[in-house]
Amino acid sequence: MSPSVALKLPFETLGWDEQGLWFLDQTKLPQEQTLFRPQGLPDLIDAIQRMVVRGAPALGCAAAYGLVYACILVIDHQDMRLSLETTKELAGALRRSRPTAVNLGVGLDHVLRAAQDMSTESWQRPQSVIAALFTAAEGFHQEDRNRCQALGEQGLALLQDGQRILTHCNAGALATGGIGTALAPLHLAASRGMNLEVYADETRPLRQGARLTAWEMVQSGIPVHVLPDSAAGSLLASGQIDVVFVGSDRIAANGDVANKIGTYPLAVLAARHQVPFYVLAPTTTVDPTCAQGNLIPIEQRSATELLGADGANGALAHHPAFDVTPAELVTGIILEDAVYAPGSEAWAQKVARLGA
Amino acid sequence: MSPSVALKLPFETLGWDEQGLWFLDQTKLPQEQTLFRPQGLPDLIDAIQRMVVRGAPALGCAAAYGLVYACILVIDHQDMRLSLETTKELAGALRRSRPTAVNLGVGLDHVLRAAQDMSTESWQRPQSVIAALFTAAEGFHQEDRNRCQALGEQGLALLQDGQRILTHCNAGALATGGIGTALAPLHLAASRGMNLEVYADETRPLRQGARLTAWEMVQSGIPVHVLPDSAAGSLLASGQIDVVFVGSDRIAANGDVANKIGTYPLAVLAARHQVPFYVLAPTTTVDPTCAQGNLIPIEQRSATELLGADGANGALAHHPAFDVTPAELVTGIILEDAVYAPGSEAWAQKVARLGA
Repeated sequence: MSPSVALKLPFETLGWDEQGLWFLDQTKLPQEQTLFRPQGLPDLIDAIQRMVVRGAPALGCAAAYGLVYACILVIDHQDMRLSLETTKELAGALRRSRPTAVNLGVGLDHVLRAAQDMSTESWQRPQSVIAALFTAAEGFHQEDRNRCQALGEQGLALLQDGQRILTHCNAGALATGGIGTALAPLHLAASRGMNLEVYADETRPLRQGARLTAWEMVQSGIPVHVLPDSAAGSLLASGQIDVVFVGSDRIAANGDVANKIGTYPLAVLAARHQVPFYVLAPTTTVDPTCAQGNLIPIEQRSATELLGADGANGALAHHPAFDVTPAELVTGIILEDAVYAPGSEAWAQKVARLGA
Repeated sequence: MSPSVALKLPFETLGWDEQGLWFLDQTKLPQEQTLFRPQGLPDLIDAIQRMVVRGAPALGCAAAYGLVYACILVIDHQDMRLSLETTKELAGALRRSRPTAVNLGVGLDHVLRAAQDMSTESWQRPQSVIAALFTAAEGFHQEDRNRCQALGEQGLALLQDGQRILTHCNAGALATGGIGTALAPLHLAASRGMNLEVYADETRPLRQGARLTAWEMVQSGIPVHVLPDSAAGSLLASGQIDVVFVGSDRIAANGDVANKIGTYPLAVLAARHQVPFYVLAPTTTVDPTCAQGNLIPIEQRSATELLGADGANGALAHHPAFDVTPAELVTGIILEDAVYAPGSEAWAQKVARLGA
């Protein structure tokens, strides 16, 4: 396969076929590989809330398609008329489904802009509106695929045959509309006959590593070892890891990286044992308005999610969703166009262009 | 309460009352606080295997009492006669229940020595043998209580009112016949009106922190926060932790410390953020014949224990039970008699005395 051809994995996270919108149901993975198809708008919103689909880029695509789906429901309902007002209301309902998911709003806004561009006459022919909105949603999805492919190529250029990669959480195809962010180079490598081995942190408490990353790697035929989060330290010390690849939820202007809780200790241990530590994320993750990592708000998750049914009565929970890795511990930030050393002139110029 | 008086907690891990041997059933904690009483020798062995009682020092006490229990069963059985041979066979059966638990054998050997000291005539009066064995078992339990109390006093001297302590796994009363090892100073502090706050790593995959340490702290009225193991890094970075207290499974002659997986990354992060890192263990944990940590064999646990029912099919597991913390990261090793800086002359002399 030529390097310039976009990789298609044996599975996709979401899509639209002759029966309409579907998501690969991530609440059923890895035991069952079933497609979820929404039965009405409340069912779609419920699915987003239950994390049938999850991961920032994937949520953007799901919301974009979801808005088209919601508009079609209106047309199918004989008593209702589709209008720009109705489309905005439907977008609002979807936006509220997971209020902290920024990318969800980005996907909705992309489709809403197409709606706003429609002439007054167009709204008299709702099928033509739907066609335009669907084209916008598909374009949004395709952009995400392209971003993932580009990240994959950048990351792949850093890998060599036989290497062992440690990763955390799931920054994979299951979190995007394409082949993933941190895991994109691994899928590409496998498709081109490179032999790699992956170590996936379990990632408590939702176990995205054990459930999703491990499943993804198996789909691409890549040997994968799941480890308790607490075992990454001695693994890095043992010399059995060649490189660390992680994703990111937000990158500050100075190169500090917010990502799933547990990323910071990985970076510290990697630096101690001279293992390169790379962050892979689409350029949209870089926030030029955020000067440094300690300005990034860290969400606290519920005690129940951590303690579960067998937590001790009376115990409190310290359960942040993210941590911040200082730029000094990051070997490189991999964006679609290049690999940037945080602190380099190239990085500063990149951030300046984004902020302009 | 005077510092010289031994602390009694509102719960005990094991004991012997008018109805005989009992264990606090740790498989039921923290939901239920029930006593397990063995119904025959196979039931006792099964309970040890199911971790109704666990933790190296506690297993030693359980085995010591367990041998007495098994001897009583022989006497109660009218067709059998108690002899030194029989006693040794019973000890063998108990020893095989958890072959890697060294302390279990230490407890058995202590009681067996009492059996070997009995005269031939004594074996004609089995009740007198039982009395002697029971005295030996009780003495072994009392020694463990004394060791815990002494460790607690040593550790307490390092604490100040209002401090916040991070700990890992359960090196508590539930793992000993007394008030614990790493948690002993915290129980003592609470009993003397000192205000502390404890952060307990969840400790995947068996969750000893979330289930057992949290429960223990609640029993002593100490505020306790459970955190995912992966959250300890950013917690230490935040300045919210004053000191780290952990236990140990084996300490090498050079001061390297083997303990539950996840201890090493804690030590690295503590050093990075200038948080003192102490190891609390009875002197029996020091192995003068083991020169350094990389000579300590590390047990690999089963994939099932880590991956469980929802692990991805085809995924492997990297699941070591322990890691090794190099002596350079250890602020102090707290034994019953003193706090030792590894690498100090005092430590070298202590190890030399133990090896003599």
